[in-house]
Amino acid sequence: MNDQLQIADEVISAIHQVMGLKPIALHEPSFNGNEWLYLKECLDSTFVSSVGKFVDRFEVDLAEFTGAKHSVAVVNGTAALHIALKVAGVKTGDEVIMPALTFVAQANAVTYCNATPHFVDSEKHSLGIDTSKLRDYLINFTEQRSNKCLNKSTGRVIRALVPMHTFGHPADIDGLLSIAKDFNIILLEDASESLGSYYNGRHTGTFGRLGTLSFNGNKTITTGGGGAILTDNTDLAKYAKHLTTTAKLPHAWEYRHDEIGYNYRMPNINAALGCAQLEQLPLILANKRNLFEKYKKAFASVKGINLVTEPNQCRSNYWLQTLLLEESQAEQRDSILKATNDKGLMTRPAWSLMHELAPFHDCPRMDLSEAESISKRLINIPSSA
Amino acid sequence: MNDQLQIADEVISAIHQVMGLKPIALHEPSFNGNEWLYLKECLDSTFVSSVGKFVDRFEVDLAEFTGAKHSVAVVNGTAALHIALKVAGVKTGDEVIMPALTFVAQANAVTYCNATPHFVDSEKHSLGIDTSKLRDYLINFTEQRSNKCLNKSTGRVIRALVPMHTFGHPADIDGLLSIAKDFNIILLEDASESLGSYYNGRHTGTFGRLGTLSFNGNKTITTGGGGAILTDNTDLAKYAKHLTTTAKLPHAWEYRHDEIGYNYRMPNINAALGCAQLEQLPLILANKRNLFEKYKKAFASVKGINLVTEPNQCRSNYWLQTLLLEESQAEQRDSILKATNDKGLMTRPAWSLMHELAPFHDCPRMDLSEAESISKRLINIPSSA
Repeated sequence: MNDQLQIADEVISAIHQVMGLKPIALHEPSFNGNEWLYLKECLDSTFVSSVGKFVDRFEVDLAEFTGAKHSVAVVNGTAALHIALKVAGVKTGDEVIMPALTFVAQANAVTYCNATPHFVDSEKHSLGIDTSKLRDYLINFTEQRSNKCLNKSTGRVIRALVPMHTFGHPADIDGLLSIAKDFNIILLEDASESLGSYYNGRHTGTFGRLGTLSFNGNKTITTGGGGAILTDNTDLAKYAKHLTTTAKLPHAWEYRHDEIGYNYRMPNINAALGCAQLEQLPLILANKRNLFEKYKKAFASVKGINLVTEPNQCRSNYWLQTLLLEESQAEQRDSILKATNDKGLMTRPAWSLMHELAPFHDCPRMDLSEAESISKRLINIPSSA
Repeated sequence: MNDQLQIADEVISAIHQVMGLKPIALHEPSFNGNEWLYLKECLDSTFVSSVGKFVDRFEVDLAEFTGAKHSVAVVNGTAALHIALKVAGVKTGDEVIMPALTFVAQANAVTYCNATPHFVDSEKHSLGIDTSKLRDYLINFTEQRSNKCLNKSTGRVIRALVPMHTFGHPADIDGLLSIAKDFNIILLEDASESLGSYYNGRHTGTFGRLGTLSFNGNKTITTGGGGAILTDNTDLAKYAKHLTTTAKLPHAWEYRHDEIGYNYRMPNINAALGCAQLEQLPLILANKRNLFEKYKKAFASVKGINLVTEPNQCRSNYWLQTLLLEESQAEQRDSILKATNDKGLMTRPAWSLMHELAPFHDCPRMDLSEAESISKRLINIPSSA
């Protein structure tokens, strides 16, 4: 009990040292640029809804920032995942590989396509999919038939592989790309948390056939609610735009829709906020990196706790600063969470692992021992830029 | 050809008489109240996303305005329909009755539940479901089994009945309520177009088990993109809120979700706009009624065209002003649409009927001769408040 109090006190002290003594949120947005100017301009134009110059500009700006050829702005990151899966060809009865250690939106979006999530293990340094373990697993448990990857035990096609760049740290993209190629699985990157994160100098979300972003209020930049789909493929970008705008065929006045569509377009007023936020992104990223350096110093002397650092050859956005307790300290996670939150310092554990949630209990999965270990030892600490 | 030119010219002249000579949109929002103030306040608070005081207030204000006990604010009208269907119990394999003359969101939302739309005919005055024809149809083509309504030809359960209050004109709600009761079908009202419309003095969307609203940019009031679910049932309201917020269980820091959920919560920044717009609604409704009176005068002398008027015992919001050509003039619809749009006066026909759209070709339907007749003769004309 004394040990527990001691380590929790040390965590509180380290956070206080970096953030000051006041209560502090896990992550808050900052609006220090043209946010109000653009919102006002948008309102004055009366184009606040699904058509307008800000939504077009936001898409151009996002493509420019990330280096993707195309971006399609949508209402949120979940919608981006849903449509990316659809346009990539995920169909009823397919399986989609994703980490067990992820946010529930990924698994939900797969079920919206009437497909089944298939959970795989994480790698302890990047917190992303363990590609070496995944390759062995696929060799043993799948077979190729007509250039498709079949799950031998369920007989279903494994259509897509959706890594996440957890808390902004890029997953092993080279490993993922080579698995996608060798096993005929489509790579879609969930870059919801990694706007401003780079792998070998290239922006995350631009390696897979499509990538997705999120601009929820807790993200690096926000549009209130929002997301985007990134792709270099012009046909897929057009198709994503079509599906997100009720699949309406272009016509001056007719209302014809050629397939089941969605009302997923980002409203212009949310895009106005996004344009201003994107201008601030370089500064926000610099501040978040600076925060990491401060935490690094503050936690240097705290024994049994490691601050998660960007993987080799990667530049992380440090969206959420992350502590990993050593195995010997794992039992102290809850007392640290309680003590910090009681002090008004918002901290949180990893998400519940996907296979532990009722709706996904029966989904296929590999051995998940590393994800289980990480999830018991992980704490996110206040991370505002 | 001379006749065609003549009637198109008369329509243009009548619109000019009411709206002036400048080009004019079909429907534009007006921001003459506290829109700026609330947006700025929302931005300054930094609570722009899924939590915040405006989204709570907007829900309270909506409930108060409509007289519903509860309202749940969501990202758009399609999401409202989807969740209303879910919480009402629409399941995979069910059928849902809706008009063929409607916006595609209704049919899409039913397919999101893996259910099948079943299209029924419209009544020529209200433009809503023809309840007398529907009753005869249900008597002949369905049977009751264990208090469920079975479609005799498909063997599927007809779970719900979703009328729309077309262009703001209330459908025959008494007739619908009695069908719902007699045939054990759940009534859900699509009130997307009828905020501010009343049936026997009571607000549309509050008669069914649930009702849905839309605040898209072209609606009577707008939140950029937005919608809401109305219900008097506290359990259903709670369930709707749960499903629209990723089905996350309340906890200070844990991320647990007990079923497949959705990211459908209305962002606070959109709700800020909504709060200001709702304050303006009485004025907007008065202006729209006034516009109807002006059009009534202007079109009084145009032969072969009738302006759609609110049904008996109803008060319509007159969201979109609507012309119905007499049968003898039906062939002139396209030349009127072309002539008005060429002059910069935005007009539009009815939506393509649902059963004429590729994704819904094979859905069950009754004889749709009135809907077909209406859709060939209908033109919406500029309707901004």
